[in-house]
Parts: sequence; structure tokens; C-alpha cells
Amino acid sequence: MPYARATEPEIESALAALSGWERVDDRIRKTFRFASFAEAFGFMSSVAIVAEKLDHHPEWRNVWATVEVELTTHDCGGLSRGDFLLATRMDALAGQRVSPA
Amino acid sequence: MPYARATEPEIESALAALSGWERVDDRIRKTFRFASFAEAFGFMSSVAIVAEKLDHHPEWRNVWATVEVELTTHDCGGLSRGDFLLATRMDALAGQRVSPA
Amino acid sequence: MPYARATEPEIESALAALSGWERVDDRIRKTFRFASFAEAFGFMSSVAIVAEKLDHHPEWRNVWATVEVELTTHDCGGLSRGDFLLATRMDALAGQRVSPA
Amino acid sequence: MPYARATEPEIESALAALSGWERVDDRIRKTFRFASFAEAFGFMSSVAIVAEKLDHHPEWRNVWATVEVELTTHDCGGLSRGDFLLATRMDALAGQRVSPA
Repeated sequence: MPYARATEPEIESALAALSGWERVDDRIRKTFRFASFAEAFGFMSSVAIVAEKLDHHPEWRNVWATVEVELTTHDCGGLSRGDFLLATRMDALAGQRVSPA
Repeated sequence: MPYARATEPEIESALAALSGWERVDDRIRKTFRFASFAEAFGFMSSVAIVAEKLDHHPEWRNVWATVEVELTTHDCGGLSRGDFLLATRMDALAGQRVSPA
Repeated sequence: MPYARATEPEIESALAALSGWERVDDRIRKTFRFASFAEAFGFMSSVAIVAEKLDHHPEWRNVWATVEVELTTHDCGGLSRGDFLLATRMDALAGQRVSPA
Repeated sequence: MPYARATEPEIESALAALSGWERVDDRIRKTFRFASFAEAFGFMSSVAIVAEKLDHHPEWRNVWATVEVELTTHDCGGLSRGDFLLATRMDALAGQRVSPA
């Protein structure tokens, strides 16, 4: 079941409930910084498992202990509930391990 | 460089510095429990990266959110500094995410 | 949706379509051997992602380049279609990388 | 031990031994395409383990089944033997699973 495009009020409300995510056009993005490559990649492995389950995958870039994430929903040409679900799960999986961006 | 067999006093001192590890003959073991499969496997991914770097690998079993670990050093036929190094790194990587065994 | 217990003819037919899987009571098991720890763990990472998606997880043990897998379905107290689905996906993911057990 | 900057003839010879890697200034890059997200991420997990062991990490971006890799050596401000070692290992780990870019 594809995710429908979120309305502007839905997006603003969902963004307000998150921390450290920035909106850029039809995307939200956040940079996660860890203490080591092993921790950064362990985080990515957890997220990979969750993302496939949600049928919603991040566009992400890893350079050593940094993971830059961008979320958008191609099927609806914008932001959807899937993006905010995944963002929430990523924040929970990063937990206390992540330093402020 | 292979790890040399630890002496009995070295083993006792190293074990005392760890938490939740049990000694069974020439091995130490611990069960890590997480809140989800994704967290358990993310932990394993971090540990896998560290283990290969240390050239010292765990014998481990995963069933959903549980990871049972056994450490020993085949090259020296007993416990070595490598086992306690890896145990310490595993505890740090599990961090606050792990419930008491 | 939980997986229903497979009938004996279903089990025999499914097993016959697989290669290298052995039946032991209410379980099937296989040992995958790779050329390196990195390959074994990469295989496990792929399988972890697929398993969570199928909502059906392996019981597995890793020792360096060896991955011992056991599959069963606790919800139905025996073997189900989920076990054979996961076994088929594991074989495909291991691909040509795996040596004969 | 940091990797020393490769000379121009060394770079040309190393590049000629690889397949699918493109040189862009002080970097080499390649796009790996897989049949599924699970395969792409399994590949990344294998590479992560090898990279940490080599003490040489990729800059990489993953979008579903595609992995875009860039390699360079910051310590020497250019390309080094470490980049070509890692590129060779990545090609081997991708193996037959990877489609032509």
C-alpha cells in the first residue's frame, strides 16, 4: 500500500514532533554522528531492517562515523506518513548513541 | 599476532571488571537481550566490524532479539586478552540498549 | 498473519525442492560455509533484512565463516510455509558464494 | 600506518587492473547495482567489515539497490594504495551478484 502525500498541516505537525530534521523542498534530512564507524554502521543495519519492513527506504550517505539521511516518497512526489514513520524509528534506533548534529 | 593464554589471576581480574559475563571452563559467555530483532542485529553488525579489526571473532547465536555469545581463543587453547578486549567492546556497543540478562 | 503448520506431504515436497537442508524433527537446518567472515556476515545481513520482512526469523549460529541455520515455526509448533520461504531466500542470497556444506 | 600518495603511473596501472571504476580528480568512483535492497545492504555489510580492517573507509551513498562509492585518501590528499586495495576487495565481494553499472 503506497503512502499518500501528506498535506501541509500534516507535514508541519509531524516535523514539530521530531528533533533535528530539516525540511528541504519535498524532503526531510538529518545528519547522525556517532563515535565510531562500527557504531554508525550498526545503526545503519538496524535501520535497513526496519526500512525494508516499512517498504520505505532512506537515501543515505555514510562517511566514517557520519550518516546523512534524506527521506522522500517518490510514489507520491512529496512527503508522506512513511517518511515520518521512518524518521521516528531512526531517531529511536540512534538513541543516546548519537551526538547532537 | 596471536593472543597468549591468560593466567588464572589475569582471568579473575578481567572477569571482575566485566558485568554479566559467566565463565564456563575455557570460555566466557553472556546473553544480550534487546527490544527488537533490528536492535539485536544492529548490535551484531557493530560487533562484527570490531571483531574483524581485533582479529578475534565471537561464537554467537541469534534468536530474534537475543544474542548468546561465547568467547574463547582457539590459538592458545583457553582464554586470552583478546576475549576480554572483545567482551569489553561488546558491552560498550550494547550500551543502554540492552536489558539485564 | 501467522504461518499454518504444513502437512507431511507439503513438507516432503518443499524439502525436495531445496538443496542441502536436513530435516530434524520439527525443524530444518543447513550449514552455510563462506570464504571469509566478511562474506558470512554480509550474507547474514541480507538474510536479516529478508527475515524481518517475512516476519519469520532464523535461529542461527555464526562461527567465523560458518553460519548454522535452524528454521521452525513456534506459532504452529512445527514446520510451515514460512520456513520454506525463508530457506529458499537464504539459498538464493548465498548464491555462488557458498561452498558445499 | 597511513597510505602514501600514489604516483601517476601507479594510479594508471592500478586503474587498468580494475573494471568499472572511473577517476574523477583525486578520487575513483563506481556505482554498484543489485537486484534488491537486501543484496545491496548485504554487500555493504561485507565491505564495512573489510574497510575497518584496512583502516580505510569508503564514502558511499545507498538508494535502494544502488550503492555509489567514492574512494580517496584524505591523509595523503589524493589516491593511495589503500583506495585500490579497497576497490579490489569491493569488486570481489560484489562478485557475480552485481549487474553492469
